[in-house]
Amino acid sequence: MGCCGMANSPTGESMTERIVRVLDTFSSDRTVQTAAQIGRRAGLPSSTAHRIVDDLVEAGLLERDDEHRVRLGLRLWELALRGSTALRLRQAALPHMERVQARIREHTQLAVLEQDEALFLERLSHPDAGANITRIAGRLPLHASSSGLVLLAHAPADLRERVLTAPLRAVSPETMTDAAVLRRALAEIRARGFVVAAGSIESVSTGVAVPVRDGGEVVAALSVVLPRETPTGPAVEALLDAARRIEASLRSSRP
Amino acid sequence: MGCCGMANSPTGESMTERIVRVLDTFSSDRTVQTAAQIGRRAGLPSSTAHRIVDDLVEAGLLERDDEHRVRLGLRLWELALRGSTALRLRQAALPHMERVQARIREHTQLAVLEQDEALFLERLSHPDAGANITRIAGRLPLHASSSGLVLLAHAPADLRERVLTAPLRAVSPETMTDAAVLRRALAEIRARGFVVAAGSIESVSTGVAVPVRDGGEVVAALSVVLPRETPTGPAVEALLDAARRIEASLRSSRP
Repeated sequence: MGCCGMANSPTGESMTERIVRVLDTFSSDRTVQTAAQIGRRAGLPSSTAHRIVDDLVEAGLLERDDEHRVRLGLRLWELALRGSTALRLRQAALPHMERVQARIREHTQLAVLEQDEALFLERLSHPDAGANITRIAGRLPLHASSSGLVLLAHAPADLRERVLTAPLRAVSPETMTDAAVLRRALAEIRARGFVVAAGSIESVSTGVAVPVRDGGEVVAALSVVLPRETPTGPAVEALLDAARRIEASLRSSRP
Repeated sequence: MGCCGMANSPTGESMTERIVRVLDTFSSDRTVQTAAQIGRRAGLPSSTAHRIVDDLVEAGLLERDDEHRVRLGLRLWELALRGSTALRLRQAALPHMERVQARIREHTQLAVLEQDEALFLERLSHPDAGANITRIAGRLPLHASSSGLVLLAHAPADLRERVLTAPLRAVSPETMTDAAVLRRALAEIRARGFVVAAGSIESVSTGVAVPVRDGGEVVAALSVVLPRETPTGPAVEALLDAARRIEASLRSSRP
């Protein structure tokens, strides 16, 4: 590796990995931190944390306030989004998500598969909508959320087997935690083209999700979250219609 | 600096700065690249570019495809957004932007001041809307775009003077390039509470923008882009109404 800033830390970790650990300490509940807090949360020596934070501030990836605390910089947001392929998917989906949202008036969401979880790219919510723990850039387990179930049903076989053979954590009392039950549910999702998951994340709500395809492959799950007592038929219909339109938009915008 | 991967390059640039240079080569027109292309565009030696790209792939900030080309990773998107204060602003604004969009049915946008430019956090566009060069995570000059003019009118005095005393580039034949004219326009924007900028970016369209305040301070510009011949009154009214609602939402969501 040699002289040129590419050297790894004593633990063999690259500078990039340590930057990721620093950025990873920020969350929607923790948007402002001191370098000392970041160091503790990232498990980095204080002097290392201070130097990485200084570097990140210098590069604009973090911004420092008057009280010497830092937050994620707009420059980071810009770099992450400007050339993002996720942005293409989200832009193709947004007008059709708005149409679903205008009809259903609860929560409308778009999720993709990322590191064995459902990662949420977008969420539209009516001000008076019911409970929903999903957050933009938040994650949910594949076997519990309606979006995750759709993504898992269409995931590569090796990923599906990995999830099915690992312990299935109960997010709510109604989460499917039996691999055989889950396996049958995934086959049914592939056959029916949608899922209705009642209470599997929160007992008060039902997730309804459908797959979105690009070039034949499932690239996302489009979903709504409804109060438990709400009929799901209109949501299924609105989602299937929107998914078809998103797929047409993706076809016409293919780079 | 010593041993621990904090060392700078022979040019004195930090590893973080070189990572930023690599990420900066991606854009909406260039979402997939080889490490060699990245090196050329970032002005980095090929071996350095390859090592940084390998590190970024390892950390998930870039993703590699079957042809050994890389794209921005979802992990980068997630890290940039999850704890982002920009996300709070955008989430507060989105429902009200949708209301503007439902009334005006062209383009509705949200921009913030970033490094002496207007950076666009969000854009909603009607499928049949007219011309608009704005992109999410794209930038426009402060003195040319309607959003930029609003942000500049309310910017700190030193930033305003810096822009007014630098050469004012003509984006279109109608861009204000005379500092005295621009200075009067900014005073008028502060007095009237909105701007109508006809043809200053593209001769076929008019930008209309209003300020959005948080805790008394202007934190964003809300704008629509209309075909040049469209009357601007309804847009001004819709934007002022939406800005008031976004401000109320920001007040109630203050962390």
